[in-house]
Amino acid sequence: MDKKKNISMAVIKRLPKYHRYLQELLKNDVDRISSKELGEKIGFTASQIRQDLNCFGDFGQQGYGYNVKDLYNQISLILGLNKEYKGIIIGAGNIGQAIANYSRFSQVGLNIGAIFDANPKLIGMRIRDIEIEDIDLLKNYLRENIVDIGIICVPRINAQKVCDVLVENGVTGIWNFAPVDLSVPENVTVENVHLSESLLTLIYLLHDKDESNL
Amino acid sequence: MDKKKNISMAVIKRLPKYHRYLQELLKNDVDRISSKELGEKIGFTASQIRQDLNCFGDFGQQGYGYNVKDLYNQISLILGLNKEYKGIIIGAGNIGQAIANYSRFSQVGLNIGAIFDANPKLIGMRIRDIEIEDIDLLKNYLRENIVDIGIICVPRINAQKVCDVLVENGVTGIWNFAPVDLSVPENVTVENVHLSESLLTLIYLLHDKDESNL
Repeated sequence: MDKKKNISMAVIKRLPKYHRYLQELLKNDVDRISSKELGEKIGFTASQIRQDLNCFGDFGQQGYGYNVKDLYNQISLILGLNKEYKGIIIGAGNIGQAIANYSRFSQVGLNIGAIFDANPKLIGMRIRDIEIEDIDLLKNYLRENIVDIGIICVPRINAQKVCDVLVENGVTGIWNFAPVDLSVPENVTVENVHLSESLLTLIYLLHDKDESNL
Repeated sequence: MDKKKNISMAVIKRLPKYHRYLQELLKNDVDRISSKELGEKIGFTASQIRQDLNCFGDFGQQGYGYNVKDLYNQISLILGLNKEYKGIIIGAGNIGQAIANYSRFSQVGLNIGAIFDANPKLIGMRIRDIEIEDIDLLKNYLRENIVDIGIICVPRINAQKVCDVLVENGVTGIWNFAPVDLSVPENVTVENVHLSESLLTLIYLLHDKDESNL
């Protein structure tokens, strides 16, 4: 995979979509597909698809198209889905519980090892066989366990503090659901899910459409 | 707001972030801020900020900067936050319940009017004073109530079907949490929250970093 240098974020953000569509094709027993057909399904142009996949290596053959299974496996490898990732959830409110309950994530190798919360009413409760632990035990847990991904689902006001504890104890992947931009050192990767921003974008587009119709 | 034409999606996607930071500044009693300071906070350049805000009108004054309250109010107006939006949730699983419980959304004018599910165990349950209704009643509800935003939290296999019912009954805003790309007519706006794709992006970036460190 020598080509895998300086891939733009735009391409990276499209890879999961390729992965999802190819998984779908596999389920429907489709053996091969042309970049044109794949493009029509996903809503990209054939040339964009060829260009994207070309960033990672030479897939597909002129006149034959892509072997769906090969391409799926390759993209899974590129995405790093051949490994297991250990995650912990901090904050067992609605979003934290939803994430803990979402079985889909284990299919891509994310295993939730522990869930922490500060609320005495939640501590001791079980979500899918994992007991919610007191957040005061977080530091100890991190010293004794290797954690790849810290999933931050605490209120915004506590998010940076929790993030700092994670980072100080060697966690380099943060999946952040708190509506705040976290400060982290360069070696730490943060992926945000900002629900409010998504909602505001939708509202803007709806409102904008209303105004254009006046 | 004559300038508000052909705004790029990139600028639109940044507006909620401006809104969030300005809200924060207001809370901290900051009266005015220069594009440089605002840029440092948000992580954009001063020139990007001036360029973005200039798409919507002439804010700010040379040498003075922006009046925080005015700018916040203007951006709220641009985003369409001066109105109320009626939303309904379809699918009262983990994500659906999380959305229903998230009080933050009502602050931006989204009021959840009803929640529907197909699961007899959930029907009749209450989330924040809203009783979960049988999904068979969805069509009737839509005929009798104006709904701005349909929030789709059903499993992927049912998402398009639910979306079609919403669209056929006049809903033009879809907030989609199902891991599927919905087909909708041109007059309908879809905003997706694809959690799996966000997770895969994070895993890719972690995996990629690991490889670079070898």
